[in-house]
Amino acid sequence: MPYADSAETASRWATERAINVWTVFSGDLPAPAIEALAAGFQDIRADGARLALIVPPGEVPTASERALADLVVDGPAMPSPFGLFAALRAAGCDDVRRLGLLGASTTALDAGHRAGATAVVGIAAGERRTLLAAQPDVIVTATDFATLDRDRYASARAHRERVLLNPGPAVVSDRVHRAVGGPDVCHREPEYTAIFQRVRHKLLRLAGVADDWAVAMLAGSGTAAMEAMTGAATRPGRKLLVCRNGIYGERIETIARRLGIEVVVVAASDLQPIAPGDVAAALAADPTIDAVAVIHHETTTGLLNPVHEIAAVAHGHGALVLVDAISSFGAEELRLDGTGIDFVASTSNKCLHGLPGVAFVLVSPRGQARIEEVPPRSLYFDLGAYLKAQATGTVPFTPAIPAVYGLEAALDELLDEGLKERQAFYQARMAFLDAAFTRLGLEPRVAAPHRSHSVHSLPLPDGVVYRDLHDALKADGYVIYGGLGEAAKTSFRVCALGALGIGALEGFVAALEDVLSRRVALTSA
Amino acid sequence: MPYADSAETASRWATERAINVWTVFSGDLPAPAIEALAAGFQDIRADGARLALIVPPGEVPTASERALADLVVDGPAMPSPFGLFAALRAAGCDDVRRLGLLGASTTALDAGHRAGATAVVGIAAGERRTLLAAQPDVIVTATDFATLDRDRYASARAHRERVLLNPGPAVVSDRVHRAVGGPDVCHREPEYTAIFQRVRHKLLRLAGVADDWAVAMLAGSGTAAMEAMTGAATRPGRKLLVCRNGIYGERIETIARRLGIEVVVVAASDLQPIAPGDVAAALAADPTIDAVAVIHHETTTGLLNPVHEIAAVAHGHGALVLVDAISSFGAEELRLDGTGIDFVASTSNKCLHGLPGVAFVLVSPRGQARIEEVPPRSLYFDLGAYLKAQATGTVPFTPAIPAVYGLEAALDELLDEGLKERQAFYQARMAFLDAAFTRLGLEPRVAAPHRSHSVHSLPLPDGVVYRDLHDALKADGYVIYGGLGEAAKTSFRVCALGALGIGALEGFVAALEDVLSRRVALTSA
Repeated sequence: MPYADSAETASRWATERAINVWTVFSGDLPAPAIEALAAGFQDIRADGARLALIVPPGEVPTASERALADLVVDGPAMPSPFGLFAALRAAGCDDVRRLGLLGASTTALDAGHRAGATAVVGIAAGERRTLLAAQPDVIVTATDFATLDRDRYASARAHRERVLLNPGPAVVSDRVHRAVGGPDVCHREPEYTAIFQRVRHKLLRLAGVADDWAVAMLAGSGTAAMEAMTGAATRPGRKLLVCRNGIYGERIETIARRLGIEVVVVAASDLQPIAPGDVAAALAADPTIDAVAVIHHETTTGLLNPVHEIAAVAHGHGALVLVDAISSFGAEELRLDGTGIDFVASTSNKCLHGLPGVAFVLVSPRGQARIEEVPPRSLYFDLGAYLKAQATGTVPFTPAIPAVYGLEAALDELLDEGLKERQAFYQARMAFLDAAFTRLGLEPRVAAPHRSHSVHSLPLPDGVVYRDLHDALKADGYVIYGGLGEAAKTSFRVCALGALGIGALEGFVAALEDVLSRRVALTSA
Repeated sequence: MPYADSAETASRWATERAINVWTVFSGDLPAPAIEALAAGFQDIRADGARLALIVPPGEVPTASERALADLVVDGPAMPSPFGLFAALRAAGCDDVRRLGLLGASTTALDAGHRAGATAVVGIAAGERRTLLAAQPDVIVTATDFATLDRDRYASARAHRERVLLNPGPAVVSDRVHRAVGGPDVCHREPEYTAIFQRVRHKLLRLAGVADDWAVAMLAGSGTAAMEAMTGAATRPGRKLLVCRNGIYGERIETIARRLGIEVVVVAASDLQPIAPGDVAAALAADPTIDAVAVIHHETTTGLLNPVHEIAAVAHGHGALVLVDAISSFGAEELRLDGTGIDFVASTSNKCLHGLPGVAFVLVSPRGQARIEEVPPRSLYFDLGAYLKAQATGTVPFTPAIPAVYGLEAALDELLDEGLKERQAFYQARMAFLDAAFTRLGLEPRVAAPHRSHSVHSLPLPDGVVYRDLHDALKADGYVIYGGLGEAAKTSFRVCALGALGIGALEGFVAALEDVLSRRVALTSA
């Protein structure tokens, strides 16, 4: 996939076929299959694809094969890939990622793999088992191929890359997509330990803390990391102070209550940051508060809470500090060293530009000592077990290995870019969007000083229904996100996370402007 | 990757280079980079790789470029991939999966992607940011390339595919590996709902139950599914009966106790199945038992528990039945319809041949009613929330999308193979291993009638140290697994899960025989 750096890329993602050149080896498919393919290929051809027949030496194409083919090329016998390259050249296509192979034999399918074809489709006459060893992406009958093409490879397929402007999972680079397909390994072997240690080291480097901090990597979503952190920090009989000014603050509160932890809430409205003074007052009023939990970036509205000030206050009262940095880690400034913060929960698939499946908790030395004092409230979320295993280079449960591969690739990408540069890029991207929103009369609901650099909640213009706005933009290749709760009727969200260049956002703004102007025209008509 | 169906494949996996042909475009790399590459390329060449220089029209290779190259081919200008195909042909290599590209420009890197090269390496002179948009797999300096080659692509690299004989994660097919790289999507969009519904339907089809069963898919390992199931089935003030004859029975017991659920244990030794009569007696003795949990396949020793008999007994007493089918689902007979079983926990990455990161719980209608009666003991593991979300086509938390893609591909593969055929294949594979073990004097520790068809625990021969046996076999490409607890000193495990043909096991048996005979020779010397 090209990098999403322009309106043109967004448009291609939203409208292009996945496969432009389908290939068949002469002599590979039985005659009835050729006939059935030909019957269904009209629609595929009309959608812009062509079928190339590869004729190996000594092979004479049948009349049906010739009738099916748009192009006929010579090529060496299967499983050589060179005939597929000749087909690409004849079709004027210079990318194997637009190439597909249809095969009825394991040798033909093997040629597809050797050519790097994006689609390797097994055409089954009877039973499918013999084709399995050649590992096609899918096995269908020749009759069903047209439906398969429509669903998976055609210009109108629903399941495809789009410019995602939701608050994660984000669009990630091909570097990350390619990494997740890495080798199958046993997580009890030293090669997995080596990967874990590298990822751990890279996370600590980005966090700006020393090696005496611990990293628990969990298979799960960001909420899994929140729950693990929440359950580990408060001793029995003590309380957790939860800062609540949005859905995610509510979520920590719910987690704590379900785990039987007594909660003290310091609240603010969805559009206001938590006041450190309120936290100080609550701490002064209740000496049994053991820890303070705060959401760094409330994705509900795109609001940043003053985590460093809150941490300083809590630290002054001897309370540990838990920060939910799920949608901020990597994009927003977060200072951990010496700031009083003890636990940080985050996830791979937001501002780190990895894929969903792995989340993590960073734990300060003081946090590690606390974990040892707290009887575990769960097995899966027993942070102590993760840290104990880590000390001997192992993990308590099977990790989400593909997602860990993706996380390492994403961290390498971030280190190649530079953390400061990544943060500056998030700022520049949102500054671009803000200027556009102002021009369009869409003032972000959160006041400028408290806005995050990845998520903005915007008022829905009068008369605009969110679903219509969403669907119109999606047709152009842009996926926006709804508001939450009551705000769902009057607001929507635009997020800029992941591997998206400003050029892609320019395309989005143009599309948004176009959709809104059409709506205004409709309303005023 | 070829399918693991022979000793030769296992040996290739364990010993071959990943990349045989490195390519460079003439004019792309600055002169100092060419010099630095040449200095490091001696070792790479000695390891069997060659470097091909692609000369576009009008380009005249420098003396340094010529000195670096093993092969010189003509090809069109970057980013065309056809020069890379010419390089492959000149090198006598017919597989783009053995092809790598080194590039200092985004155009060169793009050529690598268009050619389907397995390795696309950015060579950085100064800052790396400009290369990021071309999405190379890695960015290094020319001086560091030799180290990168040694770690990632050379014959002696540690991180590579091997024939995994551990109890999961298993070796999976390329079909699954390719699927996990699928499009980035927002899980709140209808295209994710469609995937979830398809996976749900396929799981229910394999389970042999109607659509009134529910499926909760969790981002997490099998243990996450165990904990979700365990927390959802026992009402406050009632007890959970846990059948315990191995590590995984112990694990359910620990989960329940940590969640504050009172437990009654029915135990047996690690080598004996749980007696249904013991379960009946315990149920008769305590009418407050609300549910019975049993491990279908105790991976500790490779033992099958009589889940259907135990379920019948429990059902007769009005207790719900929880089955941990983590390492049995797909491989062992498990009848759910009308058998009294209400909850089944399993995971993608064992006998279903998917990748780690997604686990699931199947829930009968009676189980669903129970969930509504039990106040949630966790947020992340609140099965009620998963089922409620499912009813409206959504999910409560970000799913592990790549692992879900892999699971669907794996389920398709299983449906193409046939469930009965998959089970017969597991039986045949283990029958082959058992015959070999008998011949080698390694009688599985569990008696034949109770053995599973994927995991066997074997006695370590006298004088054989597990670590030495493991390492010797690993050098041949086979990864075995240790015993647990006390049994670690006297036993080891051999598992046959995943996409491994009997031919690969033949290779393993030959390697095992060889290693053991050498050991005997040593001992008797």
